[in-house]
Amino acid sequence: MTHHADYARQTAERARAASRQLATVSGSAKQQWLHRAADALVARTPELVTRNEQDLARAPEFGLTAAATDRLRLTPSRIADIAGALREVAALPDPVGEIIEGYHRPNGLRIEKSRVPLGVVFFIYESRPNVTADAAALCVKSGNAVILRGGKEALHSNVALYRVLKDTLIETGLPEHAVQLVATPDREVVGEMLKLRGLIDVTIPRGGKSLIERVAAEATMPVIKHFDGICHVYVDASADLEMAIDILRNSKCQRTGVCNAAECVLIHAAVADRFLPMMAAMFATEKVEVRGCAKTCTAISWAKPATEEDYRTEYLDKIISSRVVDGLDDAINHIARYGSQHTDTIVTRDLQAADRFVALVDSSAVMVNASTRFNDGGELGLGAEIGISTDKFHARGPCGLRELTSYKWIVRGDGQIRG
Amino acid sequence: MTHHADYARQTAERARAASRQLATVSGSAKQQWLHRAADALVARTPELVTRNEQDLARAPEFGLTAAATDRLRLTPSRIADIAGALREVAALPDPVGEIIEGYHRPNGLRIEKSRVPLGVVFFIYESRPNVTADAAALCVKSGNAVILRGGKEALHSNVALYRVLKDTLIETGLPEHAVQLVATPDREVVGEMLKLRGLIDVTIPRGGKSLIERVAAEATMPVIKHFDGICHVYVDASADLEMAIDILRNSKCQRTGVCNAAECVLIHAAVADRFLPMMAAMFATEKVEVRGCAKTCTAISWAKPATEEDYRTEYLDKIISSRVVDGLDDAINHIARYGSQHTDTIVTRDLQAADRFVALVDSSAVMVNASTRFNDGGELGLGAEIGISTDKFHARGPCGLRELTSYKWIVRGDGQIRG
Repeated sequence: MTHHADYARQTAERARAASRQLATVSGSAKQQWLHRAADALVARTPELVTRNEQDLARAPEFGLTAAATDRLRLTPSRIADIAGALREVAALPDPVGEIIEGYHRPNGLRIEKSRVPLGVVFFIYESRPNVTADAAALCVKSGNAVILRGGKEALHSNVALYRVLKDTLIETGLPEHAVQLVATPDREVVGEMLKLRGLIDVTIPRGGKSLIERVAAEATMPVIKHFDGICHVYVDASADLEMAIDILRNSKCQRTGVCNAAECVLIHAAVADRFLPMMAAMFATEKVEVRGCAKTCTAISWAKPATEEDYRTEYLDKIISSRVVDGLDDAINHIARYGSQHTDTIVTRDLQAADRFVALVDSSAVMVNASTRFNDGGELGLGAEIGISTDKFHARGPCGLRELTSYKWIVRGDGQIRG
Repeated sequence: MTHHADYARQTAERARAASRQLATVSGSAKQQWLHRAADALVARTPELVTRNEQDLARAPEFGLTAAATDRLRLTPSRIADIAGALREVAALPDPVGEIIEGYHRPNGLRIEKSRVPLGVVFFIYESRPNVTADAAALCVKSGNAVILRGGKEALHSNVALYRVLKDTLIETGLPEHAVQLVATPDREVVGEMLKLRGLIDVTIPRGGKSLIERVAAEATMPVIKHFDGICHVYVDASADLEMAIDILRNSKCQRTGVCNAAECVLIHAAVADRFLPMMAAMFATEKVEVRGCAKTCTAISWAKPATEEDYRTEYLDKIISSRVVDGLDDAINHIARYGSQHTDTIVTRDLQAADRFVALVDSSAVMVNASTRFNDGGELGLGAEIGISTDKFHARGPCGLRELTSYKWIVRGDGQIRG
């Protein structure tokens, strides 16, 4: 066994042992930890800022842009926000032990489906340091032990955050290894972790597509993931065009670098003549590049012609593809062909069109007259989320506390046997 | 691409296309097919019996025992039972479109989680021919296309059953490829199928442990499975010992070859002196071999000493391992160490013991004062089941119609955008 394999197995075994203890920890003990951790994060702000400065100093080495470097920065106000997020998770209902269903059978057996933690979560991320605390909070609150693997550009910040989480786990009597951080920069460790089916119950990768593809290909355990967010806004023949402009602007421009941002607009031919000039004005103001079909390019002089590849691209930038479609079914077929089953919205006043779109578009979230940006744990009312799934197995859409759980059947009788 | 790879991909692509159609087929159309298929099975009994005779004639070639050959046999009465099972599935509520949750958000968005089919199921089985019809019924009723791969010893029977299913799909206007049968005997086809992540959404293997291990190791898509059913009956200090005998007899003897049969009995030391002679008498009558710990062997002269391996063995036969434990926690630890997270039961009159057992035993079904044999889709009220899962991801315990589905989020608004 190599050094990396050894390290991975020991880490996972400690997590597994912690998860067994954690599965029966009371909700109030978990809440207590979250509040204590929030307090400690604020109290230890100077230490966090100092360690963060080490990452910031190395940012140019990693080729981080000015924007990326700013996202990496921890300030007292941002640390207060991280603490606030922990308190919000503390306030969410404890999913563990929730009775999902319960009923009596004719023979007197009393049946319950009761929610239980998944066990051990391996969370791989490339994001800002706040995700370290968020993920730990969600996993522990849902009764799971978590192994965190952050990006190398945030290593010092993550280690500092992890120390606060770990110290407060010990202080509040929770299992110390409920949260662990893989601090070695070697990528081989990730590969070894991904072999550990039986010790790790689920892997959640969050970051660029190449990371997620690698994890999905190598993992021997289930993975909660999405590759792309190629989200569509479809403007139907009967749409309120002002509403369509607002929804399209919000879906594309409110934040461009996120998975639920729109990457393609589909416009019913019957309203294209009226809608395209409105869209041109809006995207000109927002400085969004339009890559369109022939009809789009005819109506918008400054639009560039879209290639087949454009319709398959998640720009994550101020670029959008645009296509005029022959009708609702043409739009639905376009989404089936080019979409990524993430989030798609129809703007319409036609009940039948709305119902058909909802029935036939097979995405994790299908919207009617609402921005694609609402496919989000907080916006859908789940509280914080650890990721979004476009798979169909286990969980789909935003994954919050409940999606980090399984269930067991509890059967209570008074001597029943099978005839 | 090899011939097998080509065949697998074409089959899966036809299934994928059928699943898209099937996802929006009405519940009544699916019911109509099930009733038509049931009628046709009965009407075509002579054809089914003739084809079944070809399998029976080859049974000695495959080394089938007399009992296995009998299980393979299709008689008019058994065909009527298969038809009856289809009618029972027809009568179950349609899971597709069920609103799992629904609520309004403060900004007026109306949110629904709506049940949708998984898509394409690849079902691999070694069982009796009735499973062919059961699996097809469950998959199609839940809106999924299914690719069936039965055992070679039942090939002719399965082909004959499949023809009836396919003919009636066409007659009732459902997609012809909603049900397909892999009739080639080459094992390579299974390997090619298991590569088709993206075309096949879930694989369900049902049969011997080596089959399931091979499928779990090779599959690139999620698998619903259990390896072993090492189920325990724990007789607590406060147990009603007559009840414990009844539950133990039923758990072990009612059917020995099934996954929810007991394979090990754990006895609290405080009642061992009284319970072991009762158990000895019962198992002597039932002709069950006992492999026990030292205390068991002292009390039961004819018991054999149990090895470490015995406690890890799913006998599926008239054999049981037996161990006297120091108390409840010793029993719980034994189950954690040797069990397979399938089904475990406690016999007790002590509320605290029952609660602790339920909380700490991490199995798909945990029973109190009831036979392990109740971990079954029909017995728990789910209707028919396609398999039992001991994994924690997606579904646990019996997998019926609902467990063959996923969900999508539906968000309806009147122009909401994110602030």
